[in-house]
Amino acid sequence: MDIKKILTEIELQIAEYGVDGKVADYIPALAEVDPNQFAMSITMLDGTRYDIGNYNTKFSIQSISKVFTFTKVLGIYGKDVYKRVGVEPSGDPFNSLVQLEYENGIPRNPFINAGAILVTDMLLSNYKNIDGTFSDILSLIHTLSNNSSIEYDEIVYRSEYENGCRNTALTSLMKSFGNIDNNINDVLKIYFRHCSIAMSTQELSRSMLYLANDGTDPLSKIKFLTPQQAKRIKAIMLTCGHYDASGEFAFKVGLPGKSGVGGGIVAVVPNVMSIAVFSPRLNSFGNSLLGTKALELFTTKSGLSIF
Amino acid sequence: MDIKKILTEIELQIAEYGVDGKVADYIPALAEVDPNQFAMSITMLDGTRYDIGNYNTKFSIQSISKVFTFTKVLGIYGKDVYKRVGVEPSGDPFNSLVQLEYENGIPRNPFINAGAILVTDMLLSNYKNIDGTFSDILSLIHTLSNNSSIEYDEIVYRSEYENGCRNTALTSLMKSFGNIDNNINDVLKIYFRHCSIAMSTQELSRSMLYLANDGTDPLSKIKFLTPQQAKRIKAIMLTCGHYDASGEFAFKVGLPGKSGVGGGIVAVVPNVMSIAVFSPRLNSFGNSLLGTKALELFTTKSGLSIF
Amino acid sequence: MDIKKILTEIELQIAEYGVDGKVADYIPALAEVDPNQFAMSITMLDGTRYDIGNYNTKFSIQSISKVFTFTKVLGIYGKDVYKRVGVEPSGDPFNSLVQLEYENGIPRNPFINAGAILVTDMLLSNYKNIDGTFSDILSLIHTLSNNSSIEYDEIVYRSEYENGCRNTALTSLMKSFGNIDNNINDVLKIYFRHCSIAMSTQELSRSMLYLANDGTDPLSKIKFLTPQQAKRIKAIMLTCGHYDASGEFAFKVGLPGKSGVGGGIVAVVPNVMSIAVFSPRLNSFGNSLLGTKALELFTTKSGLSIF
Amino acid sequence: MDIKKILTEIELQIAEYGVDGKVADYIPALAEVDPNQFAMSITMLDGTRYDIGNYNTKFSIQSISKVFTFTKVLGIYGKDVYKRVGVEPSGDPFNSLVQLEYENGIPRNPFINAGAILVTDMLLSNYKNIDGTFSDILSLIHTLSNNSSIEYDEIVYRSEYENGCRNTALTSLMKSFGNIDNNINDVLKIYFRHCSIAMSTQELSRSMLYLANDGTDPLSKIKFLTPQQAKRIKAIMLTCGHYDASGEFAFKVGLPGKSGVGGGIVAVVPNVMSIAVFSPRLNSFGNSLLGTKALELFTTKSGLSIF
Repeated sequence: MDIKKILTEIELQIAEYGVDGKVADYIPALAEVDPNQFAMSITMLDGTRYDIGNYNTKFSIQSISKVFTFTKVLGIYGKDVYKRVGVEPSGDPFNSLVQLEYENGIPRNPFINAGAILVTDMLLSNYKNIDGTFSDILSLIHTLSNNSSIEYDEIVYRSEYENGCRNTALTSLMKSFGNIDNNINDVLKIYFRHCSIAMSTQELSRSMLYLANDGTDPLSKIKFLTPQQAKRIKAIMLTCGHYDASGEFAFKVGLPGKSGVGGGIVAVVPNVMSIAVFSPRLNSFGNSLLGTKALELFTTKSGLSIF
Repeated sequence: MDIKKILTEIELQIAEYGVDGKVADYIPALAEVDPNQFAMSITMLDGTRYDIGNYNTKFSIQSISKVFTFTKVLGIYGKDVYKRVGVEPSGDPFNSLVQLEYENGIPRNPFINAGAILVTDMLLSNYKNIDGTFSDILSLIHTLSNNSSIEYDEIVYRSEYENGCRNTALTSLMKSFGNIDNNINDVLKIYFRHCSIAMSTQELSRSMLYLANDGTDPLSKIKFLTPQQAKRIKAIMLTCGHYDASGEFAFKVGLPGKSGVGGGIVAVVPNVMSIAVFSPRLNSFGNSLLGTKALELFTTKSGLSIF
Repeated sequence: MDIKKILTEIELQIAEYGVDGKVADYIPALAEVDPNQFAMSITMLDGTRYDIGNYNTKFSIQSISKVFTFTKVLGIYGKDVYKRVGVEPSGDPFNSLVQLEYENGIPRNPFINAGAILVTDMLLSNYKNIDGTFSDILSLIHTLSNNSSIEYDEIVYRSEYENGCRNTALTSLMKSFGNIDNNINDVLKIYFRHCSIAMSTQELSRSMLYLANDGTDPLSKIKFLTPQQAKRIKAIMLTCGHYDASGEFAFKVGLPGKSGVGGGIVAVVPNVMSIAVFSPRLNSFGNSLLGTKALELFTTKSGLSIF
Repeated sequence: MDIKKILTEIELQIAEYGVDGKVADYIPALAEVDPNQFAMSITMLDGTRYDIGNYNTKFSIQSISKVFTFTKVLGIYGKDVYKRVGVEPSGDPFNSLVQLEYENGIPRNPFINAGAILVTDMLLSNYKNIDGTFSDILSLIHTLSNNSSIEYDEIVYRSEYENGCRNTALTSLMKSFGNIDNNINDVLKIYFRHCSIAMSTQELSRSMLYLANDGTDPLSKIKFLTPQQAKRIKAIMLTCGHYDASGEFAFKVGLPGKSGVGGGIVAVVPNVMSIAVFSPRLNSFGNSLLGTKALELFTTKSGLSIF
């Protein structure tokens, strides 16, 4: 399989979709991103890398951070996590309160907003203070990506925080059911900060290699998760990684993945490679339009779907 | 009609229901109220008063304050109020977020929590600051009841504020839809304060006389609302005054009324009288059990239902 | 009060609304009705009648028949009816399945479709066969209106039956919860037949006089319901009589009423009169636009609202 | 990998879970099945077979038939299927009407009841008559399993049909939205018939081999689906194959699978094998308790999860 050739083909084919979709505009800071960007990076288990497009451009990882925080919380609490958050697809938009109310404040899975906020609350309970909790999340990302320069974007963070009413509602609702232990604003400060982390596809692709290798980084040899835990994160990525279009993604791409409204998507081919794509225009479900298309083309051309 | 005789009969009959129901316990301060209390006060258009039981005991008016704040906001904004809050029964519990999400942050009516919070937000937009807004609400109650000693209960207020996550969720959700203009905590401070106002049935009954008289207090001659507006408040009281048991109340009592989880209920016989009852034990819908029963007995005995 | 003068004014004022709204088109037979019709009839307790417009034109009473079937079932089963149907506003459209599923097949009230179908099932359980059940319902209407020529419209009935999938769904869902005793199609045949009864405003107004007089027809002296039962029907009409716009109707008109998608509305001024209006164009909630407006004008001009 | 040894271990370990769960009792015919049965069959791409337990016992395949009908409809209509049925997890129980109403009669996916009924309607539109449609479905199963003796169970079928109100409700609701073309009862007769097909794990495992081999049976060389279509069915099995516990199954087992309330589950290891398990006791989500456990043990022991 000639990955370089496949990527070159994708870059050409992707061009024709360039004007569809629209950049996330729910916060001012994201709305200003240049919509005409595209990048794709692949990291093989042995560290070989393939990149196309703006692969060094940093963008807001947004919901992709949910993979990092969930990895963190699984490492600390193990199975106890599942007492407070489920593993089922929600069948509802990513920020819906309906299901949360019907199900007594237990979020459906760790990859919808409510679930990731809950995970953040558990991390805060462990580290006790806002800065310590956040720096520990960041430190995990530094280790995973072998890059300690990664930081969050203060402007995006402020913008999120000032426009985060829906997330305040989710957090307050969970707290009213006794499923949030800490101060609502403290939890949200950490949550919005990790959503605002800025990374390139090159960095993201590198940082996901542990998931392609059963929980252990194949280059640094650091074990972040047990094989069982890594398998479970991938299962949740497949069934819940793309909000209300997770079935569509499984159906078209056929890989465990996680998208963010910043336009990034990460995906994993178990035992083979980790992939990151970036393109800011989103489809109606909030997933990168070109990113999804590029991944679909990739699994079709390479035959690397898990199905 | 011998009102005195009817009240005496009610006092006797009500005794047999004394141990059913349970006092509101969602905030500590309310849970401590003596459950074995009962009071009923009637004020005629000419000012004649009839009382039984603990008619001088002050209790937390809770949602009954929604009648006062709605009167206030109607007086200031008129029909513009209905651009931001509906007039339909919700068919859901008083603090449900489901309908609010499906209906884009527009509360069903001013007598569910979301609606009353929205009304409070509109009042704050008018008076600009927390204390000014609250003292204006209180001042309305002083005038209506001809009693300037009425105050809110600081302990109940603190208790509400510290346990108000569900209301924070409602307010945040409305704000995420752009239907709350002010700071969430500022709005809630006023909201919880007017919920914590303490009044006796004697005072409450007196203060509702304007609604029995088409919007004008028959004793002080002060006009608080137009007859049209008074009619509308009474219509909303009938269809939405008792949460998810409003139909039951219309059905059994047949009067426009409004209940609070503090155990109070106010009701109005148009052109005849205003009534207030109090008894802390609540039925499963959060309405005073003995209070509802007493009003049912009253309309059955007096034939004074509006139907 | 000069009722004749008020009606003349209404007839003039109503003209300006003539082109708004649209005729029910969910079944072909109703869609063919002349949209430019208007009629209003009032019957006083002493039998005096006032009419304007096309007061002799027969139209499909549709959901107004729910008042007759509920009267019938209350007379037979008394309070036992409330074991199988509630008395609360639904807060959802008239044919919604959502609430019915969440609430285990117990319809919210007898005036939404599910509730009226359930009432029809109870009547069929009593009379055992389709024709007997329907002729008994019709016989009640003959007695109430003192007019034995009233019949159902075979063409409308066929049209309803052939397009009644939504009602089949409601009935099947209730049956799956064990809340329908008879064969689904048998129940629906009776249900669609009584919806298809054709009456004029003159006949409808006359037939509702018993509700204005505490359950007893003031002219024939026949007692159809106890005063207590009559009061309860009126309470349910006020809170649930106009689908998802019941609050709006209580608010604007202030009378217990019941509308049908055929364009008719009946209303009652307790102890004074019964009213029927007809105009085929409907508002977005399925209630006659001009009919509602005419009733609003009437209570404003006459001051006869119950509030 | 010693599959024989793994199966022997599973058979031993599974014994300790023997008394949990409960047999489906929503229809009398299923409630009579001996609860203490267990079987597991594996078929390799080359036709080698491994069996344990009651692998020749026939049981009702129930919802597993949805895989066959969906294969059939995909073969006939191709992508047009997705105009009438989605590919997203529902997040609701298998027979919920709520989502179907909110989403205008478009079922979430072909593996919930509504979706499979819709697929059956499409097949009936193609074959025109009930018997022809059903015999064509059966004929597919005969070919896939290389066994023409497979039949449906008349007693189970009658029992389903007589207790099928919930499915009548789903079908009527879809028809009311114009998403069912044929007569409701005709569609349901075919639907209940294919749910009542009786097969053993040996037969089921054999019949799923085409999905393990990209749509073409590796032994008969017959091509039932394109590789792309086979990939998509497997994706939908993974995200939607186990009702409201699909995430849990992906998470624990990590294979595309489909369960039925008769106690059977089929699963596929792409390019390796097809598996069928059977045990009648169900967990609270309606999936075989021992069947799920056996598959979980299998992927843990063999490392054959797709993740």
